[in-house]
Amino acid sequence: MKVNGIEIEDTFCEAFPMYFGRVLITAATKRWAFVAALEAKGLGTSSTMKPKAPGEAGIESELGPSETPDGRPGYILLIGEPTIEELNYYLIARIRKGVVPVPTTATFDAMPKDLIIDYIKVEGTPIQQFGDGYEELINIYGREMYKIPRMDGFYYVDTKFGITKGIGGGNFLILAESQAAALLAAEVAVNAIEKLPFVFVVGAHGGGPAASGTKVSGKNYKKAIATTNHLYCPCIRDKVPDTRIPPDVRCVYEVCIDGLTMDALKRAMTEGIRAATRIHGVKKITAANFGGKLGRIQFHLHELFK
Amino acid sequence: MKVNGIEIEDTFCEAFPMYFGRVLITAATKRWAFVAALEAKGLGTSSTMKPKAPGEAGIESELGPSETPDGRPGYILLIGEPTIEELNYYLIARIRKGVVPVPTTATFDAMPKDLIIDYIKVEGTPIQQFGDGYEELINIYGREMYKIPRMDGFYYVDTKFGITKGIGGGNFLILAESQAAALLAAEVAVNAIEKLPFVFVVGAHGGGPAASGTKVSGKNYKKAIATTNHLYCPCIRDKVPDTRIPPDVRCVYEVCIDGLTMDALKRAMTEGIRAATRIHGVKKITAANFGGKLGRIQFHLHELFK
Amino acid sequence: MKVNGIEIEDTFCEAFPMYFGRVLITAATKRWAFVAALEAKGLGTSSTMKPKAPGEAGIESELGPSETPDGRPGYILLIGEPTIEELNYYLIARIRKGVVPVPTTATFDAMPKDLIIDYIKVEGTPIQQFGDGYEELINIYGREMYKIPRMDGFYYVDTKFGITKGIGGGNFLILAESQAAALLAAEVAVNAIEKLPFVFVVGAHGGGPAASGTKVSGKNYKKAIATTNHLYCPCIRDKVPDTRIPPDVRCVYEVCIDGLTMDALKRAMTEGIRAATRIHGVKKITAANFGGKLGRIQFHLHELFK
Amino acid sequence: MKVNGIEIEDTFCEAFPMYFGRVLITAATKRWAFVAALEAKGLGTSSTMKPKAPGEAGIESELGPSETPDGRPGYILLIGEPTIEELNYYLIARIRKGVVPVPTTATFDAMPKDLIIDYIKVEGTPIQQFGDGYEELINIYGREMYKIPRMDGFYYVDTKFGITKGIGGGNFLILAESQAAALLAAEVAVNAIEKLPFVFVVGAHGGGPAASGTKVSGKNYKKAIATTNHLYCPCIRDKVPDTRIPPDVRCVYEVCIDGLTMDALKRAMTEGIRAATRIHGVKKITAANFGGKLGRIQFHLHELFK
Repeated sequence: MKVNGIEIEDTFCEAFPMYFGRVLITAATKRWAFVAALEAKGLGTSSTMKPKAPGEAGIESELGPSETPDGRPGYILLIGEPTIEELNYYLIARIRKGVVPVPTTATFDAMPKDLIIDYIKVEGTPIQQFGDGYEELINIYGREMYKIPRMDGFYYVDTKFGITKGIGGGNFLILAESQAAALLAAEVAVNAIEKLPFVFVVGAHGGGPAASGTKVSGKNYKKAIATTNHLYCPCIRDKVPDTRIPPDVRCVYEVCIDGLTMDALKRAMTEGIRAATRIHGVKKITAANFGGKLGRIQFHLHELFK
Repeated sequence: MKVNGIEIEDTFCEAFPMYFGRVLITAATKRWAFVAALEAKGLGTSSTMKPKAPGEAGIESELGPSETPDGRPGYILLIGEPTIEELNYYLIARIRKGVVPVPTTATFDAMPKDLIIDYIKVEGTPIQQFGDGYEELINIYGREMYKIPRMDGFYYVDTKFGITKGIGGGNFLILAESQAAALLAAEVAVNAIEKLPFVFVVGAHGGGPAASGTKVSGKNYKKAIATTNHLYCPCIRDKVPDTRIPPDVRCVYEVCIDGLTMDALKRAMTEGIRAATRIHGVKKITAANFGGKLGRIQFHLHELFK
Repeated sequence: MKVNGIEIEDTFCEAFPMYFGRVLITAATKRWAFVAALEAKGLGTSSTMKPKAPGEAGIESELGPSETPDGRPGYILLIGEPTIEELNYYLIARIRKGVVPVPTTATFDAMPKDLIIDYIKVEGTPIQQFGDGYEELINIYGREMYKIPRMDGFYYVDTKFGITKGIGGGNFLILAESQAAALLAAEVAVNAIEKLPFVFVVGAHGGGPAASGTKVSGKNYKKAIATTNHLYCPCIRDKVPDTRIPPDVRCVYEVCIDGLTMDALKRAMTEGIRAATRIHGVKKITAANFGGKLGRIQFHLHELFK
Repeated sequence: MKVNGIEIEDTFCEAFPMYFGRVLITAATKRWAFVAALEAKGLGTSSTMKPKAPGEAGIESELGPSETPDGRPGYILLIGEPTIEELNYYLIARIRKGVVPVPTTATFDAMPKDLIIDYIKVEGTPIQQFGDGYEELINIYGREMYKIPRMDGFYYVDTKFGITKGIGGGNFLILAESQAAALLAAEVAVNAIEKLPFVFVVGAHGGGPAASGTKVSGKNYKKAIATTNHLYCPCIRDKVPDTRIPPDVRCVYEVCIDGLTMDALKRAMTEGIRAATRIHGVKKITAANFGGKLGRIQFHLHELFK
């Protein structure tokens, strides 16, 4: 199958269930809301430094003042972890470290009600306890919130955050004739995805593509959680007999996508791939899978374009 | 004592020893180097979510292509943790999660030799093991580095990172008549500090000020690591008999500074305070201390201006 | 009348008819589209350097790839001039200087059909002539466009741009106790307006507020087109017997708004004022008028809140 | 001759004398200084929309608070025009429209004394007359300045700006196998140049490369000031018998550089070319010249690397 003249390999990406929170950060100005969202999203690129580092996170969208409970500008952050226990810990940590310190911020649960399978409670966490007994439970903006004294005024935060079981590890690989072509195609794909709801590109600030595609465990380092996807590294093609890199390919980037629903993820993959295929120098689109070792959820690339 | 007509309280900030790495991130373009630096710096605002979250980090400076080993643009990141063990873990985690995935990046040790007290080795970490045996030790740029295959080419990283014993918790508080005045003064102070070497403002993206000043442990929540510095919260002044907030003060921001040396930190505090006092609406500059409970290092504000 | 506890003066802003184009700039990536929009918008802050400088311009909104004719990310630019002749010249100049040089860009007319009163033709201008005879007229994206050879490929541009008769000079003034408070309130107001359709804040990059409020002509320099609005300069209050600055006001910023329709402008003024009044330290909202000397269009502040 | 394995054509770029001002813009914060610099630099990409549009402008460098006369952060802007008369007009226009309206700004002459050949006086211009007689001449920061009342306080501006006779039109062309490769190489070149003193890349926000390389006048449109450099447009190679595009080249970008001195320009060209040649997919570096029709100043590419 070809899209815009570029071959789409007949394969699938292997994804897996992941737990997510959807958090709205508002502030007096758009700038401070963005600063908080960016900080809270930090170190959100992959889940392979467990157990003492956070999992994945990304900015989903920007909201104008008329779209938020407190009438201020805001950003929606998606936070994902492999287990509910980890999400419990790191959703709180991301808010505590990334939002609470930032001037004028507030934090709201933004998970759509029909997706909620459980809640993370703020009670008893370092966020609530930050108040040291001076915090209050109040009703405001049509919801129950903590009102916690901070040096610049009260910090408002929802008492619980809805969580859902979504999908991690959605991905496709862009194989191109040069680093420049792969990079431009990846950026174009990210631009196409970043306007879509309920998904984010798992990558650095702004949702960059991943240079460091991984495979589960290692061929040589068998105790490693994840190692370089050597089959897709053009720079060592000569050393890898079963390389999947065609002769005219010099660079590969992976666009990793997490999402709250199957539909959202499918749409993101479809629009991302379509956008990437428009860039001259792209040779092939494929996806990473590991024979079912990584995840039960499969997105077949050809089905996306039917 | 007054600076620019603003009272500087006769007190001291209480700081503490902290361990730091100084890491140079380069990339093909300034933009990708910045994206990596920002991601690797994420969740770097305070050390109060231990033990399963990273400590502090910030961007120290930007380097032009003529100032880096590989002739590409770069950013210097400072990474700080309370203990060498934690620094060992989180320096690696910040590079693994924040830099390795970002297109075209490389990573160099940038700690000045005369400050180095020990090294963090990359061998055996998820960075080296990412190579899955395809990595090589080579000599390049006049140093020994790992050359690790990544999908977009080889990732170069130093084999060890020098660490130093520096200072965490440097701070001053800006007390102002309004949130706006405190915020502008804090931003002006950050601008004055961010051009200085060997220090960073501990805050969100760009080194924002902290709204969430803390005290050690809690008055009510005694098991908490840190809670709101209620003595400096104007919003609950009426509930705190021993409040330190004068009647005309409505907002406080803390500028927190980490640094590699006493001199660098003193200079940063001095220039930051001087800048903040220029903003109309600032009423007083003071600093947070806790009767010696937090740290042995003390910076007396009045001595900074002698 | 008070809004959020802040006095709204019983006065009106004096606006005037102005001619506008609405131009969509797309590019391969969001970044290059933004770079072009910003450059094309440059020197767009006021119309007082006539006749040899451009008038006003601002970025109205960002469009995702699914919202543009060529499926690429884009920004909508509004370009305003006092006369159709000037708009003819400077709309072309802004595109020629701000968009044509920027990598991968294309340019579309984005004026809603029901607002169009006339067209600016690209034929015979330096944009069409840039092609030097190698350009072609083609049908693409459901419209007639020029396809003009550029070193990085073909540049596509509509053959004509719809213009409308809109409103320039919409404004309100924020009077505050400090520069910091006025500045924060102005930024908050800009944030509230910048998400609205068919308007832009006339100001520097990002729609900053204006420090340099003007009056028509001058009291002392009678030949000047516009001079400082001395009645609203707190810094010379002592020298201006008829000053309009209350004793507790130290700073004023003007939020200037241009818009395509009366309704769009009214909504922008209303939401901007409402947002500004939330900031502590704001003392009063008023508007600039000149006894009818400047413009026939009047927006009475009190009517906005009925 | 080859640099990093890439052919450098044995040719020269044809540049021409141009007049420049060097203006320092400061503000309370780095952000507002940047906003002003960006706005004042707007529409600064080429001089081909004369006589009613500004010429060229770009941001040279950022200064920290300790490097400016008023101890605030700042940006240095270079402003260039073909004639002293035009520079007189547009230097004032760029400051009046781009800086005066922006909150908290001030403006200083930053031309090195040994380069000054003449001065532009602020007296009698719309900047001085903005004061409407309320402005004062004062001595401050060791210089004579106008102190002009603005709504947010006094605006300080030097009474005169030194001008120099520098060089416009420095350039080199990057020929590459794809748009992506040319674009990445151009960005890398811009990054190498943007840290150098006394020069700027003539391009959109951030100094982007130019897609719209021009030749003097037109082959078909003989009255045009400048038209597409058809000899270097890969997209019409088939229609141009004397095309200079090799068969494997699909995209060209021009890096245009203006500078105050020959040495500064030579260094910028050398470092820019060297950086560009590192990117895979670049096929050739050359430069635009027009048989002496455009300018008397010639930079021979091969001499740059001797």
